[in-house]
Amino acid sequence: MRIGAYYLRSGTCEFSVWAPFARKVELKIVYPEERLLPMARDEKGYWTTTGENILPGAKYLYRIDEAKERPDPASHFQPDGVHGPSQVVDHHAFPWEDGEWKGMDLRRMIFYEVHVGAFTPEGTFDGVVARLDELKDLGITVLLLMPVAQCPGCRNWGYDGVFPFAVQDSYGGPEGLKRLVNECHKRGLGVKLDVVYNHLGPEGCYVCEYGPFFTNAYKSPWGEAINFDGEYSDEVRNFFIQNAHYWFRHYHIDVLRMDAADRIYDISAYPFLQELADEVDASARQEGRKCFLIAEADQNDPKLLRPKEKGGFGLDAQWCDDFHHCIHVLLTGEKEGYYLDYGKIGQLAKSFREGFAYSGEYSPYRKCRRGQPSTDIPGYRFVVFSQNHDQVGNRMAGDRLSALVHFEALKLAAGTVLLSPFLPLLFMGEEYGEEAPFHYFVNHIDPELIKAVREGRKSEFTSFAWEEEPPDPESEETFLRSRIQWEKREQGKHRTLLALYKALIKLRKETPALSNCDKSLLEVMAYEEEKVLLLKRWQEEENSFVFCAFNYKTADTRIFLGDFIEEGRWRRALDSSDVQWGGPGSLLPDELHAAEAIFLREHSFALFIMKKQRKNDFTPGP
Amino acid sequence: MRIGAYYLRSGTCEFSVWAPFARKVELKIVYPEERLLPMARDEKGYWTTTGENILPGAKYLYRIDEAKERPDPASHFQPDGVHGPSQVVDHHAFPWEDGEWKGMDLRRMIFYEVHVGAFTPEGTFDGVVARLDELKDLGITVLLLMPVAQCPGCRNWGYDGVFPFAVQDSYGGPEGLKRLVNECHKRGLGVKLDVVYNHLGPEGCYVCEYGPFFTNAYKSPWGEAINFDGEYSDEVRNFFIQNAHYWFRHYHIDVLRMDAADRIYDISAYPFLQELADEVDASARQEGRKCFLIAEADQNDPKLLRPKEKGGFGLDAQWCDDFHHCIHVLLTGEKEGYYLDYGKIGQLAKSFREGFAYSGEYSPYRKCRRGQPSTDIPGYRFVVFSQNHDQVGNRMAGDRLSALVHFEALKLAAGTVLLSPFLPLLFMGEEYGEEAPFHYFVNHIDPELIKAVREGRKSEFTSFAWEEEPPDPESEETFLRSRIQWEKREQGKHRTLLALYKALIKLRKETPALSNCDKSLLEVMAYEEEKVLLLKRWQEEENSFVFCAFNYKTADTRIFLGDFIEEGRWRRALDSSDVQWGGPGSLLPDELHAAEAIFLREHSFALFIMKKQRKNDFTPGP
Repeated sequence: MRIGAYYLRSGTCEFSVWAPFARKVELKIVYPEERLLPMARDEKGYWTTTGENILPGAKYLYRIDEAKERPDPASHFQPDGVHGPSQVVDHHAFPWEDGEWKGMDLRRMIFYEVHVGAFTPEGTFDGVVARLDELKDLGITVLLLMPVAQCPGCRNWGYDGVFPFAVQDSYGGPEGLKRLVNECHKRGLGVKLDVVYNHLGPEGCYVCEYGPFFTNAYKSPWGEAINFDGEYSDEVRNFFIQNAHYWFRHYHIDVLRMDAADRIYDISAYPFLQELADEVDASARQEGRKCFLIAEADQNDPKLLRPKEKGGFGLDAQWCDDFHHCIHVLLTGEKEGYYLDYGKIGQLAKSFREGFAYSGEYSPYRKCRRGQPSTDIPGYRFVVFSQNHDQVGNRMAGDRLSALVHFEALKLAAGTVLLSPFLPLLFMGEEYGEEAPFHYFVNHIDPELIKAVREGRKSEFTSFAWEEEPPDPESEETFLRSRIQWEKREQGKHRTLLALYKALIKLRKETPALSNCDKSLLEVMAYEEEKVLLLKRWQEEENSFVFCAFNYKTADTRIFLGDFIEEGRWRRALDSSDVQWGGPGSLLPDELHAAEAIFLREHSFALFIMKKQRKNDFTPGP
Repeated sequence: MRIGAYYLRSGTCEFSVWAPFARKVELKIVYPEERLLPMARDEKGYWTTTGENILPGAKYLYRIDEAKERPDPASHFQPDGVHGPSQVVDHHAFPWEDGEWKGMDLRRMIFYEVHVGAFTPEGTFDGVVARLDELKDLGITVLLLMPVAQCPGCRNWGYDGVFPFAVQDSYGGPEGLKRLVNECHKRGLGVKLDVVYNHLGPEGCYVCEYGPFFTNAYKSPWGEAINFDGEYSDEVRNFFIQNAHYWFRHYHIDVLRMDAADRIYDISAYPFLQELADEVDASARQEGRKCFLIAEADQNDPKLLRPKEKGGFGLDAQWCDDFHHCIHVLLTGEKEGYYLDYGKIGQLAKSFREGFAYSGEYSPYRKCRRGQPSTDIPGYRFVVFSQNHDQVGNRMAGDRLSALVHFEALKLAAGTVLLSPFLPLLFMGEEYGEEAPFHYFVNHIDPELIKAVREGRKSEFTSFAWEEEPPDPESEETFLRSRIQWEKREQGKHRTLLALYKALIKLRKETPALSNCDKSLLEVMAYEEEKVLLLKRWQEEENSFVFCAFNYKTADTRIFLGDFIEEGRWRRALDSSDVQWGGPGSLLPDELHAAEAIFLREHSFALFIMKKQRKNDFTPGP
């Protein structure tokens, strides 16, 4: 059952809302003029009506049991915020110009994660549009938007959304998002949207007044879990499945990122995630393009990614946090929280080879074994990064990697991510070493909640040996400090780093051995003491062979290659320690040969490319 | 890590207990003379010691943090009950005589469920031994024991067990159980033991004082769930995995029935049930015989039964409650509780064809969709029954089917179960129409708990329109009334029913088309209005073809066969309405032909067998 208000044509609009326990639901138009329309209930508890003389822009509430008036849980727009009425949107009206857009190949995806509010001074979708040409120039292929579902106030990461179908008013609402997607598609960029199916925010959460959306059978990090397997769960599932359809269909979104999918509790025989994947597949066939589902999940469970024939859920990809944690701990030496579990170059090597570094090993942080082997999962099913909103913003001081490690290490992190066989993700500003923090910020209206959030944030960090208190998440100042300082892109080392990111992305795209995302065409060797990782990747039929060396040691290091690379003319394509990239100067030859020793600068990486000489190639004389 | 006390030889005994939070654990021998032995802790929190001059029969406690003395959670015997000390058992001492026993084929299993206490006046394992010849004569192949883990007091269904390794003292303890298994194996009978891995009983539950066995992450029907996926869960899992090994190894148990396996909460990438199946497989290879795991589970999730390559857990079989519920509601017309979801002959037909009747359909009782298709699951992976301890004992009055329906219907239920392609299970006494109720009974010691259980039982049935209160579960009278009245086997209609059960089991065993448990060699047709189900099964290479008709209508019914059976000499092998079986007399011909109409007596079933005439068969002249 489709839910929400759908404007059909010439003043006709269909309304549908699920309220199984209500004895009576009426549609109350509150703008432009007040009207009350009766609604009819079906056997599942959906109340529907078709209203006439209702134009887009009309505002409405549902009147429940003649007692209370509430916005539509599936509202498409909340122009007056979470506590105001819902608004009718005409999804046929937008002048889409992306008719040629047929979606994209998962293997080609390079994500760029953006918080719409903090990405530009405007803090709107249109503000993002103005930067698209630069992102295109950077080389990323998919814009990833942190959640845009309506949250209270005008500042929020998005995970406190309470109207999963309504586009945040302060970002520019539905039209704004459509303009942004349209402009992305016109430039050949895909759009990925972060959606939250594991909880709803604490303020303005009116869904609870409509039906049994929550269950106390499980304890989630946010309190009661969403009811995906109890009584009435079919219609709760429908709510979220409709939400996925909605973004693909009406906003032309290409990929959904499902926030903390491992916190979607469901022990039924047909788990929600599996049903969602089936439903999205079916709807994608209708739309004539693939719609992708990518989960954030940290249980290292390959079931999410396996095809249905193998008992999997058939999701397209998932976050690979292990890869991040390996890089982060190798570079920072941090051991707090889950970083306790990392620090070995061998773990990074395993992640390169398999995906999950924890595939059943005991996790000292979790105090139990974690994960299952992901050897059979293709590389393009893992999203990797050296930073993202969580890894930066969940730190007390919101410090980016640029605030923790020196310039050479930033380049090393970039190389590790972009030369991996996985789908890379950059966090806005990372590409030029943005130094502004990315804080946790919210803008609740309820004074009690404001107090609770402030105290919660403080207590979260009491166990840390910080000198200061965390910034006040409710203050506008905290938000403003989290904004990108766009002008830095053109300055000094920032400009150099940006150039390196561009060069790496270009190499990744143009070198078949780097773009194939094929873990079976890859070999890794880890030197634990030297903290060096050697990587070979190839694409034989395209005559493309690469060799990469990553030095995570804070010292120049000599590595004997032995027979790791075969004989051939390995041309140095990039050395991050080169003067060109702001480094102290490369110690590597322009051309490399097997069985040599190589010298790697402290925290540097290098890339060599080879094409095999073929019999019919022209060989220049001596 | 093996846990508990293991007697090695000549006075040497190894002790091991998991107590990760204890600062000090000591072994205190309390019998025959008091001694305190130090124990050493390993990194996982196991405390071990090897004691000398300790003989089998020695009693001991663990002294924790010099503050409290408690029995061993993995105690092999509690001769003085749940609050007493644990006792050392010598598992090498028993004179096993089942050396030739190599286990059995799953397809051959016909279970007979027994409550050791209520099965005989003795209420002991030896009491059961005295009845084995009669059970063998009945034809069942596997004795299923309700849980024997030590419970408080001397009367309990077994699901309040608090020492999962200790054999109930009042039944005869470890030696008694071994004698029973030995006698079974000598007679070619297998033994299946009911084990409870989803909760522990409320009284004498000392495991909680040793480690984090429970978690509040999930709400189970018994309160906090067992911690299978949280911090320290590796060792909690080990406790139960060791338990499975223990029964197979030291008691020669053939099959474990895992009680309510769907209430084992675990959202990790490697769920406990999967690990258990892997571990049992590995240990079975060591033992040189297959050890079977059969789950009670009612989410209709085929994942439990699918092989690991298909993402399944690889369990051997599971309860198929749907099959029972179909039969029960067709016969009784009851609609209370989960019976609301049943009542159609088409559902029974689906269960015959597939296994699960609910494979994704909306369940009015559960108020959401339930299950996934089990079409790919072989018939021998489902255990079916028309009665079992739950379906009888969880009724307020503990009434067996014999108290609810008339004699003809009892025979019909028997035929439906025993002619199915699944593994049949009989509940003790069912085979002769025992009329004693099977009540819920317990024998707690703690007065508070006694009060709570009494009140809980009453409130469970407040919503039912019963005239009386449920029997007091704590009273001995309630237990005594639940005992089998063995002498009835030889009386009147009881004797007739027993003969029918024997005949059916014999036919099942001797007719290849009936014993193959192959759902792909089967065809079913349901007549909803007539409440008739027609069933064909075959085993072509053995030239074995059967046709069965089940009439669930309370009226004689005429059914036109059409082309459901092919031409041939279908010999009537059994008609439950025959005078021989205490019926009003068969209306069926001795030999059946295609395209005929047949007359089925009210609540009767019939079985026809055909062998195809082969070219080289001798055909008698006219």
